[in-house]
Amino acid sequence: MSESPSIYLQFTNWLKSKLPGNKPEISSSPQDVQAFIANRYFLTQEQRDWLIQEFSDLQKQNTTLQQSLREQQTQATANTEDLLLELLEVSDALEALLNYLENNPDPSPEFIQRLPKSVGAVYRKFISVLSKRQVTPIELQSNQPDFNFCRVVDREIRNDVEDQTITKIVRQGFLIGEKVLRPTEIITSKSEQPLQETEDKEQAEN
Amino acid sequence: MSESPSIYLQFTNWLKSKLPGNKPEISSSPQDVQAFIANRYFLTQEQRDWLIQEFSDLQKQNTTLQQSLREQQTQATANTEDLLLELLEVSDALEALLNYLENNPDPSPEFIQRLPKSVGAVYRKFISVLSKRQVTPIELQSNQPDFNFCRVVDREIRNDVEDQTITKIVRQGFLIGEKVLRPTEIITSKSEQPLQETEDKEQAEN
Repeated sequence: MSESPSIYLQFTNWLKSKLPGNKPEISSSPQDVQAFIANRYFLTQEQRDWLIQEFSDLQKQNTTLQQSLREQQTQATANTEDLLLELLEVSDALEALLNYLENNPDPSPEFIQRLPKSVGAVYRKFISVLSKRQVTPIELQSNQPDFNFCRVVDREIRNDVEDQTITKIVRQGFLIGEKVLRPTEIITSKSEQPLQETEDKEQAEN
Repeated sequence: MSESPSIYLQFTNWLKSKLPGNKPEISSSPQDVQAFIANRYFLTQEQRDWLIQEFSDLQKQNTTLQQSLREQQTQATANTEDLLLELLEVSDALEALLNYLENNPDPSPEFIQRLPKSVGAVYRKFISVLSKRQVTPIELQSNQPDFNFCRVVDREIRNDVEDQTITKIVRQGFLIGEKVLRPTEIITSKSEQPLQETEDKEQAEN
């Protein structure tokens, strides 16, 4: 469909031509009138105007929706390309580091000393690309797991802390905006089953 | 708007009620008939059916477009989240390397020896995330620049190669699908302006 704004006008004109507007010539003999009426529906001027308006509105909505669909697609593609372009810069930095390492099998002590800084710069660049997309680390508020943000991947017997306490963060979680992109993977404590209890249970079973 | 499929039926019924379908009672005196005709438009059964069909089709298209718009949005969000999740795994690997370096200011020779492999693994993981999105390096077919894929960022005087030859790749370019995401940045040669020519020019100017 053409995107010219005059499409509405074109459509309305077309519709007007389709909606019969000519006054038919009929004789006024009662039989003819009855026959004519029997095969026709009647529209007042207001009804006809209303119909044309409704048609035109629907058509406009349709065109607007088609436009939104295209624009949304274009925007999504542009957003992805922006992200990928920024990522390429991170990959450039990583590649440069890799090339240096491969070409210098015995790196100088200065290089080794500078290495945390070099890797740190790549890492921070990477993190800044992510945080620009509202990706931020989950900050746990307590050592009691909040299951909206955490996933327990293992449990360990610990008698020095309360049951169900976070004992280790296995993998940092991230939010995207307010939504969990990846939960924080944790290990929580469980109390050791007291020996006496086990013995009681065994006796009960025998 | 409800998404129930019966919306079409509801709409058609509503339209039928709006489109006057009652046969008005009019006397058949010539004056009354003239007056009635003068203020009315007429629809045959076929025209009325056509109108209802057209209305209903437009409404269906509208609903379909609205659905596509929502689905496309959902899909775009899901694609971005997938990409970000994969990137987090790369950032995990980079962070682990960084943590190790920061906690071991004097890394062992074995660690240093393994370093190209470690960094290479992170780099390849990164590249695989990109290539999954059809991001691939541009491969230049000759040492003559193809300006569809290259951008000249500098020129250098070189008398050992033909004019306009690629003498250095400054930054690797990438395609996304068949489209250039980032052109390859290159340096090309230019011939030194012969001294004689300069002198001739100077003489001509004096």
